[in-house]
Amino acid sequence: MAYKRVVILGGGFAGVYTAMYLERHLHGCSDVEIVLINNENYLVFQPMLPEVISGNMGILDTVSPIRRLCPRTKLYVRRVEDVDVVNKTVVLSPGFRPRSLTIKYDHLVVALGNVTDFRGMSGLHDHAMPFKTLADALRLRDHLIHVLAEADIETDPELKEQLLTFVVAGGGFSGVECCAEMADFVRRAARSYHRIKASDIRCVLVHSRERILNREMPESLGLYGQKILTKRGVELQLNHRLKAASPEFAVLDDGTRIPTKTLVSTVPSSPNPVVENMDVPKVKGRIISDLEMQVQGFEDVWALGDCALVPSPTGEGYCPPTAQFAIRQAKTCADNIMASFGRNKGKRKQFKFKELGKMAQLGHRTAIAQLFGWLNLHGFFAWVFWRAIYWVKLPGLDRKIKVGASWFLDLLVPPELVQTKLDVPSAMTHEHYEPGEIVFREGDLGDRLYIIVNGEAEVYHDTGQGGAPVARLGAGEVFGEFSLLENKSRSASVRCVDAMDVITIAKSEFGPLVTYLPSLRQSFESMMQTRLDGNGTPSESSQSHE
Amino acid sequence: MAYKRVVILGGGFAGVYTAMYLERHLHGCSDVEIVLINNENYLVFQPMLPEVISGNMGILDTVSPIRRLCPRTKLYVRRVEDVDVVNKTVVLSPGFRPRSLTIKYDHLVVALGNVTDFRGMSGLHDHAMPFKTLADALRLRDHLIHVLAEADIETDPELKEQLLTFVVAGGGFSGVECCAEMADFVRRAARSYHRIKASDIRCVLVHSRERILNREMPESLGLYGQKILTKRGVELQLNHRLKAASPEFAVLDDGTRIPTKTLVSTVPSSPNPVVENMDVPKVKGRIISDLEMQVQGFEDVWALGDCALVPSPTGEGYCPPTAQFAIRQAKTCADNIMASFGRNKGKRKQFKFKELGKMAQLGHRTAIAQLFGWLNLHGFFAWVFWRAIYWVKLPGLDRKIKVGASWFLDLLVPPELVQTKLDVPSAMTHEHYEPGEIVFREGDLGDRLYIIVNGEAEVYHDTGQGGAPVARLGAGEVFGEFSLLENKSRSASVRCVDAMDVITIAKSEFGPLVTYLPSLRQSFESMMQTRLDGNGTPSESSQSHE
Repeated sequence: MAYKRVVILGGGFAGVYTAMYLERHLHGCSDVEIVLINNENYLVFQPMLPEVISGNMGILDTVSPIRRLCPRTKLYVRRVEDVDVVNKTVVLSPGFRPRSLTIKYDHLVVALGNVTDFRGMSGLHDHAMPFKTLADALRLRDHLIHVLAEADIETDPELKEQLLTFVVAGGGFSGVECCAEMADFVRRAARSYHRIKASDIRCVLVHSRERILNREMPESLGLYGQKILTKRGVELQLNHRLKAASPEFAVLDDGTRIPTKTLVSTVPSSPNPVVENMDVPKVKGRIISDLEMQVQGFEDVWALGDCALVPSPTGEGYCPPTAQFAIRQAKTCADNIMASFGRNKGKRKQFKFKELGKMAQLGHRTAIAQLFGWLNLHGFFAWVFWRAIYWVKLPGLDRKIKVGASWFLDLLVPPELVQTKLDVPSAMTHEHYEPGEIVFREGDLGDRLYIIVNGEAEVYHDTGQGGAPVARLGAGEVFGEFSLLENKSRSASVRCVDAMDVITIAKSEFGPLVTYLPSLRQSFESMMQTRLDGNGTPSESSQSHE
Repeated sequence: MAYKRVVILGGGFAGVYTAMYLERHLHGCSDVEIVLINNENYLVFQPMLPEVISGNMGILDTVSPIRRLCPRTKLYVRRVEDVDVVNKTVVLSPGFRPRSLTIKYDHLVVALGNVTDFRGMSGLHDHAMPFKTLADALRLRDHLIHVLAEADIETDPELKEQLLTFVVAGGGFSGVECCAEMADFVRRAARSYHRIKASDIRCVLVHSRERILNREMPESLGLYGQKILTKRGVELQLNHRLKAASPEFAVLDDGTRIPTKTLVSTVPSSPNPVVENMDVPKVKGRIISDLEMQVQGFEDVWALGDCALVPSPTGEGYCPPTAQFAIRQAKTCADNIMASFGRNKGKRKQFKFKELGKMAQLGHRTAIAQLFGWLNLHGFFAWVFWRAIYWVKLPGLDRKIKVGASWFLDLLVPPELVQTKLDVPSAMTHEHYEPGEIVFREGDLGDRLYIIVNGEAEVYHDTGQGGAPVARLGAGEVFGEFSLLENKSRSASVRCVDAMDVITIAKSEFGPLVTYLPSLRQSFESMMQTRLDGNGTPSESSQSHE
């Protein structure tokens, strides 16, 4: 047998377990090279991710390093940029040098899962936080501590209320578990903030159906979950969808605006863009595989996990997108790849599996579970069961030891309040504003420059007479430059008129840009001159578009 | 007694312990409000910070939340922007709204420590990593895992060597402990990377004196420390100073260039800029305090810790900038503030303290220690002693439990490999290049636009004939725009001629900027036209400045 290379795209359960099962077949032979490509160097165990929020569990223990799980696999921590199934190549994003990397394959395993996709939903990309990776969870945790700290010293009751409102969109496993854990954490942590009362905190879960976990759990458990969440003070917004987001609020489909600085969105999921661009048969963006995990019409392309449409072994419908199925699909896939290399006498296997059960944690030592399709559990006992099952499933002895120890200590110590503050303020941001929303007020510090991408804004003065507009601005126009160039506070207020997207540049970066880019300086100078001339009067308050 | 507000600036040992001792005096009285202002919401226990690198200890356990240490203090997690000792006010950076916050004080305690200051050292701000906060340590850890992952798949031996070279500048406690832990971690972690041999790894410690820890430790222990580090494969560059840094190397004062992607600098320290701007008596940037911690000429301003020059209680010289001294100074300061409120019959105290000892951890279960000024310890026993002392000193029972558990588990489990990847690639960066250094090569992906702030570069083609320059660029000029606008790879190479500073804008941000800012688009279009015309020929390879 000649030297072969199997390239696996994606480091979720499907991808990592395919690599693990392939490694078991190798028995020290070196005629097959296994390559795995993933954005992150770890496997996320999604149900454990909410534990990062409370911070009591060692943060790195909630995920497992792929290198430890499949030590003989060559891991590329890069992004997949392109797949060419005709020439059998995969193109990866550059590393330290700006050159992309092309890898040839003999067999390709596509296990790219799906991605959180905010396209077509105004402002979600800019103002909603995803909850998929360790970095997402850590950022959310940091953000929660930040808003608590600010709420504690805030004297404006309106801003304080907004800071203490927490919104999660999505009533599937991920949204429910994240919301439950978040509600738990902010309430427990708030005890250390003397100017925050538990009753000041508002947690909202937005879900598009009439009950949570409607696809994942039977009705009785879903309703039980709702009862628990409501008891904990989580407000359920059922039959509603998140439509848009701005720096100041979450907008629901009926136009309701919930003022908040914390919006987590676990919906919607859509196929990975790489899968979208692949030239293989698909239905609704998912790759069509058979019960052998092989892609229709290809001898050397395999697809499994959430990005694939695998027929259900029962003959009805398709496999659900869960870890349980992904792991068993991975075994079938690895076996069949080895069979195509002539191992096991070339005999292929068909995917067979019956779901064991489903569980969801509801925070505060409560959970719901359905086992074998008929046994429903809820409450504390289900929670103990949840922990026991996931502890057994945790890959690697070191993880088992560490997580076990953390879970034990977690009973003894209060929630962790350390904020890591890893986020560096961005030099450039994209922001979305809804009609009527104020971008900045007269007297604010001039901290950013705004470039309108689309929509409209108006400039006005806070005269107390309702604020008559002095100018109207549209796409391609700039505002906020005056106080940046003159180092003054804002000389007028700006309000969004027509839903507006802007690019902003921080003052710290705008300064050097204008200083060192002569053409930019000239264009700003002439723009300011025009605005001054156009107004006729040189008085500061009315001359500029700020 | 009227209501009084004590405002403490800084959350290091000096500031936090002042708040803690003040709280003890309050006994439930509410006539004194204690306010503490700090960038971070935690107290860093500097000697534990290197433990973040290995990741075995719960990352958040290496620091302590200030809110837990002094629960009755009002904590502002903001930056101090200005202090006015005449009007008795402190100005803080804005929170969620762009308005600064002014706080009035009755007593002011200045405990701002010092900051890592790279001013005047070319490129250090852009290319060297500091090591002061939890975020710094986490970023370094992530970076180390990133370079290991890239080195593992790199085929160019030169780049691989560069990726596996780790440089630390500064031979004080912080630099030595960071270097020892880092050397330990990369060597142990490298075992999981099959294409990295331990012998490929190079760790360099740069120190300006003839031996490490020359100010902190007696000669015998310093030399022992050097022996241990050398045995571990750390290369010592003594009597050398770091002069500059670029994306590709660290430059020493004798012009030596060490190719590396990992440069940590723990020197030089300089006073906090806020202290620099304060109108109080200072010597070499440090505020002059007396043995009562009061600032010369002020009844209501106190200064202690690293930012203050406190006379030594022995009568000779000044207190060293260590935690031991800061903690005892804090007690004196708190007592005297309360005395000025009429407590303790108004009796003031003088600072008295004799240093107990000094310790440094050298990684791999070795340490050096000097106790009571005469008892020198080294090796494993000193390391056990180090852990025991620091465990006892750890503030709070929850920290003691968690750190104890982590230290125990750390004996059982291999180093943690999870990379959190919290850093978002910057839209704009500042970079420094040294003469002869290549900025990008023909054929590279066009990922950034470059604006020259100062220095000079030349554009050339990799013809194999030494690369004759086709153009020379200076301050205010732009390069790299062609492949960005045309979406092609670089059509020429660019090399730095005269030490050069540039601002870069990422392609992902340059696109929208040029699209939505008409004036910018026009200026780029006319610049490209000029360059095309200037060359006369429309052939792609020679027409542009790339």
